Amino acid sequence: MTTKAYGAHAADKPLEALDIQRRAPGAHDVQIDIAYCGVCHSDLHTVRSEWGGTLYPCVPGHEIVGHVTAVGSDVAGFKVGDTVGVGCLVDSCQHCHACDDGLEQYCENGFTGTYNSATKDAPGHTLGGYSQRIVVDEKFVLRIRHPESQLAAVAPLLCAGITTWSPLRHWNAGPGKKVGIVGIGGLGHMGIKLAHAMGAHVVAFTTSESKRQDALDLGADEVVVSRNADEMKAHTGSFGFILNTVAASHDLDAFTRLLKRDGTLCLVGVPEHAHPSPNVAALIFGRKAIAGSLIGGIAETQEMLDFCAEHGIVSDIELIPVQQIDSAYERMVKSDVKYRFVIDSATLAA
Amino acid sequence: MTTKAYGAHAADKPLEALDIQRRAPGAHDVQIDIAYCGVCHSDLHTVRSEWGGTLYPCVPGHEIVGHVTAVGSDVAGFKVGDTVGVGCLVDSCQHCHACDDGLEQYCENGFTGTYNSATKDAPGHTLGGYSQRIVVDEKFVLRIRHPESQLAAVAPLLCAGITTWSPLRHWNAGPGKKVGIVGIGGLGHMGIKLAHAMGAHVVAFTTSESKRQDALDLGADEVVVSRNADEMKAHTGSFGFILNTVAASHDLDAFTRLLKRDGTLCLVGVPEHAHPSPNVAALIFGRKAIAGSLIGGIAETQEMLDFCAEHGIVSDIELIPVQQIDSAYERMVKSDVKYRFVIDSATLAA
Repeated sequence: MTTKAYGAHAADKPLEALDIQRRAPGAHDVQIDIAYCGVCHSDLHTVRSEWGGTLYPCVPGHEIVGHVTAVGSDVAGFKVGDTVGVGCLVDSCQHCHACDDGLEQYCENGFTGTYNSATKDAPGHTLGGYSQRIVVDEKFVLRIRHPESQLAAVAPLLCAGITTWSPLRHWNAGPGKKVGIVGIGGLGHMGIKLAHAMGAHVVAFTTSESKRQDALDLGADEVVVSRNADEMKAHTGSFGFILNTVAASHDLDAFTRLLKRDGTLCLVGVPEHAHPSPNVAALIFGRKAIAGSLIGGIAETQEMLDFCAEHGIVSDIELIPVQQIDSAYERMVKSDVKYRFVIDSATLAA
Repeated sequence: MTTKAYGAHAADKPLEALDIQRRAPGAHDVQIDIAYCGVCHSDLHTVRSEWGGTLYPCVPGHEIVGHVTAVGSDVAGFKVGDTVGVGCLVDSCQHCHACDDGLEQYCENGFTGTYNSATKDAPGHTLGGYSQRIVVDEKFVLRIRHPESQLAAVAPLLCAGITTWSPLRHWNAGPGKKVGIVGIGGLGHMGIKLAHAMGAHVVAFTTSESKRQDALDLGADEVVVSRNADEMKAHTGSFGFILNTVAASHDLDAFTRLLKRDGTLCLVGVPEHAHPSPNVAALIFGRKAIAGSLIGGIAETQEMLDFCAEHGIVSDIELIPVQQIDSAYERMVKSDVKYRFVIDSATLAA
């Protein structure tokens, strides 16, 4: 099946309209007509091969929402017309410890990413959500219970949402807990909304005085401008958990200092240039930890989506036609978006 | 009370015999005649002010064993003649969360170290175990249940023992668990013995081919020479917990790679020069953590001592007269000791 898509033929080429093939739905497959697709920093890094190893043509996009238009003969969980989502994963081995634990993102045999991963389908690697249609094994399809009117703003939950949800849940954010969220961007703004809805006392950290009111509006109980030493100092030794969404190289010690005993600073972004080496004494004198966390598994993604539907949580987005993707990337690099671009997939037909 | 001791008057002076004062036992105090005192790297760092801030005269020593020679009127737990120990702590605030939790080493108001901490006693800072006698609040006195014949070899349990015991217990080393111990020195050799006795499958890591048999003799189930890439690779993704006792700057990524999902690499040594900045992606792709741990609390120190008495565990030591402390320090710097020097305190009378 030929499908219109938007992608790049090389690292130094702009994205352009192209036709791709999708497989006919197999017995366990769900065919989805894509309504919207969020724009993630990973899309940009991959399409430009900034992490290396990008396979071309590259069609990015892993914050996919749409409607089921066909199902395979053995599909039990979905039917034509259902509103569904697809996130960062479209397959995994299904038989390792991680898969058994519903944490397919840590699949010991390597998960299949929604784009740029090896697949049997043409052209030999997966092609993502900047396209009209996608065919995915039902195990990796999520049910969306938000109203249709919110659908575009649901898309970023599939990556930005779950990437913050999973560590917040794992490290038990909730009532009576003081939780820090570092960075107020695509991920951070979701972290604030989710941690707030979980009942935690949320402290947002930003380098920009201009984001102070925004963070409060998103649900932060307090906002700290991290360049202000006095504001930082007031929180010394007080956090059980800080979720750090900033990928740019920065001083981690400023945040380990704010942890209390047994606290964890969790990183979800891979820095292009290494962070300064963290102070080990700051970890030792307090049994503190610096940890990492990667997106989330399918079961917890569904849990997150259901929680968000129940609490009326969506992303703050700017909807764009796919033809504006290059300028959106330029603005994203400058953090000039509140807080996530989402492609209106109907514009692919133009 | 005048007590013979061994200490230094300045960072650039050798240790020498000196007379110090000990307070008369107060109502809650235990007076201890010291039989043996272990020699810790911290002694050397402090006496030479390598961490800065050393108060002189400096009398090091926080691996103290001996016998009770007097008790205060309100002391209920100890009587004259008891065999006891004193570790790294002689006081703490007793009213913060950490003290309430029996983790006085993380006292939020700062614990009082056995040496080089502020005190009301002369000369205004604490003086340690390179001395004939010490007076300590009974809350910080440990009971020793080993046979008297093992007493010298018990001394290092008070720091090297508890520093490895506490994280091994906290991160649940035990039957069915594969535990790594990095470095086979004063701390590491205790880590191997303790983790083995806890029932874990112990893998020792050393840079020295020459220590392979020693590690097996100490109780390791496997030994990996960490300079051997193939040996390291065979353990990729297999550890829930690795205790890293090496303080010298080194590549931590070599060990985070060996962790499985949700595994922790725990550091107990503060490097003089920072470790290379750890690879964040290695943490993210596996929800792994780099953590720290500091000695241990009083309750867990007693638990460790009782466990060691029950399992016949002591340190491997080389007993020295106090007059040989300088040459012992030189050999310790070169890791030329199996595995801990212990001072025979009777030689202070010479």
